[in-house]
Amino acid sequence: MRRTPIVDALQAEEATKEIKICGWVRTRRDAKGFSFLEMNDGSCLKNLQVIVDESVPTYEIIKDITTGAAVELLGELVPSPGKGQKWEVRATELKLLGTADAEDFPLQKKRHSDEFLRQIAHLRARTNKYGAAFRIRSEAAFAVHKFYRDKGFFNVHTPILTGSDCEGAGEMFRVSTLPATGVEAPKEGSVFEDDFFGREANLTVSGQLEAELLAMGLGKVYTFGPTFRAENSNTPRHAAEFWMIEPEVAFADNEDNMDLAEEMTKYVVKHILENCPDDIELFAKFVDKELMGRLENIINEPFARVSYTEAIELLSATKKKWEFPVEWGIDLQTEHERYLAEEHFKKPVIVYDYPKDIKAFYMRLNDDGKTVAAMDVLVPRIGELIGGSQREERMDVLLERINEMGQNPEDYWWYTDLRRFGSAPHAGFGMGFERLLMLVTGITNIRDVIPFPRTPQHIEF
Amino acid sequence: MRRTPIVDALQAEEATKEIKICGWVRTRRDAKGFSFLEMNDGSCLKNLQVIVDESVPTYEIIKDITTGAAVELLGELVPSPGKGQKWEVRATELKLLGTADAEDFPLQKKRHSDEFLRQIAHLRARTNKYGAAFRIRSEAAFAVHKFYRDKGFFNVHTPILTGSDCEGAGEMFRVSTLPATGVEAPKEGSVFEDDFFGREANLTVSGQLEAELLAMGLGKVYTFGPTFRAENSNTPRHAAEFWMIEPEVAFADNEDNMDLAEEMTKYVVKHILENCPDDIELFAKFVDKELMGRLENIINEPFARVSYTEAIELLSATKKKWEFPVEWGIDLQTEHERYLAEEHFKKPVIVYDYPKDIKAFYMRLNDDGKTVAAMDVLVPRIGELIGGSQREERMDVLLERINEMGQNPEDYWWYTDLRRFGSAPHAGFGMGFERLLMLVTGITNIRDVIPFPRTPQHIEF
Repeated sequence: MRRTPIVDALQAEEATKEIKICGWVRTRRDAKGFSFLEMNDGSCLKNLQVIVDESVPTYEIIKDITTGAAVELLGELVPSPGKGQKWEVRATELKLLGTADAEDFPLQKKRHSDEFLRQIAHLRARTNKYGAAFRIRSEAAFAVHKFYRDKGFFNVHTPILTGSDCEGAGEMFRVSTLPATGVEAPKEGSVFEDDFFGREANLTVSGQLEAELLAMGLGKVYTFGPTFRAENSNTPRHAAEFWMIEPEVAFADNEDNMDLAEEMTKYVVKHILENCPDDIELFAKFVDKELMGRLENIINEPFARVSYTEAIELLSATKKKWEFPVEWGIDLQTEHERYLAEEHFKKPVIVYDYPKDIKAFYMRLNDDGKTVAAMDVLVPRIGELIGGSQREERMDVLLERINEMGQNPEDYWWYTDLRRFGSAPHAGFGMGFERLLMLVTGITNIRDVIPFPRTPQHIEF
Repeated sequence: MRRTPIVDALQAEEATKEIKICGWVRTRRDAKGFSFLEMNDGSCLKNLQVIVDESVPTYEIIKDITTGAAVELLGELVPSPGKGQKWEVRATELKLLGTADAEDFPLQKKRHSDEFLRQIAHLRARTNKYGAAFRIRSEAAFAVHKFYRDKGFFNVHTPILTGSDCEGAGEMFRVSTLPATGVEAPKEGSVFEDDFFGREANLTVSGQLEAELLAMGLGKVYTFGPTFRAENSNTPRHAAEFWMIEPEVAFADNEDNMDLAEEMTKYVVKHILENCPDDIELFAKFVDKELMGRLENIINEPFARVSYTEAIELLSATKKKWEFPVEWGIDLQTEHERYLAEEHFKKPVIVYDYPKDIKAFYMRLNDDGKTVAAMDVLVPRIGELIGGSQREERMDVLLERINEMGQNPEDYWWYTDLRRFGSAPHAGFGMGFERLLMLVTGITNIRDVIPFPRTPQHIEF
């Protein structure tokens, strides 16, 4: 007999003579001649109540069924006289699959700190909070795929191992099969000639450049994969390994780009509210009291849109003391981004047309010669959720920008080639998936929306 | 005005006065006073025919519109008098977005070899074959997500950077921020104490162990992400970076595992046949004449199932000359796998209960003490498509197996912990996504189902 997931049992249309339930015991309460088990199998937040009375043949094992034990049982699904649950199960057969010694099992019925639970990340999916977080993560990922597919995008897998450095930043992990120690630099040539790929290889920081290559053939594409930054910074918003969603659209400009970013954000938030009501309610109740208001606001209000120059004016006009002084030309810091979204606009805001000197070489130069057609989506609590731009499709301008940025055009021969053959306007952006999840759940530490986070000095599990 | 993707224009219900089309020109044919353009925008295999006559204001640019050029145009969508197409466009405005010099542009109208196209992988998505391959890749990825979600699985992102080695094999890429040269081994301790994670870090070869951790909380999970092997082998079936799908199910045995593997394979093949008929037709016509028969067979016939011991008997009973001699205890080679699937059963076959000595420590030991509850799905043309097993849930047996395999149980404290706390039977498998695509398209080289393949000495793009 196949087991019935608890999510299905709880939503049953009618009573069932025989049902098989497997799961982990959250609590056991004993009364005279019978016991209540609260069981959870991960399929949903809610537990299923099971009544085991002494007529069950194996009733004597009930004493070993403590919090955390794995149990398989047969029983009858019947209407529950108790409050807050429609159904319960009266067990007829009971089997203890795996014990969880009450002295040792760390997840006893009480509240645990996030820090503690990170140390037992191999078990935390069995708690209400992390179970909910990872179910939401899964559903959000599906929403992303569904959104793009419905709009005619193709999901592309851009390479994780790369010989190029998309952002021109040096914070990359090197990937190698050479020994870690005792390697001397050769007199001539590069040591990487003996490495697996015959040249230096790194972990990607973005799939954008390759996504552009594919967009210029398939039209509309998106990536959804892991990206890496070897930044030695311990903040609640940064991880060394995180997932990014990067759409790239041929025949699109920065206006289209902003429309897509706004539409996508709204879509995913709405999808989660509709498909994960119980899990979201947990976060709204216990993690962030303002969560529902913020999410409703994202869905219902059009995002504000201001140019970078206007944003600088807004920031300059306040009496706020900034840690990083505001003037035209600075890169916006989280304090600025959050002020704009949280205090000034009180909703997400898209800032566009940034100074070219603070942005990457591939962003399209505007006619003013000073700004590029970039756009960032800033959201309350998080700051930057999305960063993107129209891409420079003009060969001469692109080459000038690559040289200006101190990069070597030959390293990007395939990228510049796109501007030789059927070049066209195109645009795209990157959204940090974990930031989206922090927005949706109210969780404030990126380590708590990834099952097994990687940060400096941390690679356990 | 927004552009209409060609896939939508070709399926229009009625004629349209004004439509905007953007795309790349596949061919141009000139007649007296007008020209035909065959346009493609990547949204589908089929081209849209556009008639540009000399009344179009910019008609003089037509001479620069050569194969590969990017064009934007307005026009009227009208019924086509030509054969094989329902609609065509009569242009009213025409704009050349980007030229493609006929001397230099490598994708002229002729057949190119796969080898040549790999060297210009940045452009090959603009060919019929690779456009079709990558559209199928996208739709297959969606089918995977949909299949698992509909069955109540949660998509989990297991870490790419890992401190452990799932398969006990040494073929891993090391990830580091230490210098590549001039690093000496310290007198005491490990050189990796100074590395980013404070210990040796590698690229994952499988997300299974972490997927198990999550399955034992969420019940049913699957991963779909990149995995890596630093094997210095140049075969048409191996890449250093490839994508894997790894479901893991709590309260499931190897029988359930086989059912899931068969159901999933059939589902994805069926989904592709239903959703990508034009792209599949291209492969059935030009790449593999037997493709359709093989795919129909996969959908319609139950997979064969034999134990490893029976498989060895079948292989021994033939008169075939094997490169690798057959006897009980050997690991099946591709020649054996293909014989079973192609010649003996003439359909996919699942082989189960392999000798424990050729399988990993985490596979569940059968009562015979000699075999483990493993299962591989072997398919025609490919050989092994899926490999999986029921996992060893008994602590004492697991520890014995880890020691037998020469591994250190302390490295897996979090993995063995699962057997201390609420242990339960569970099972899962890994499917190489590229092998699935090779099966579905008939493409015989893994380099041609990945946009930018990574193999020894190859990391361009």
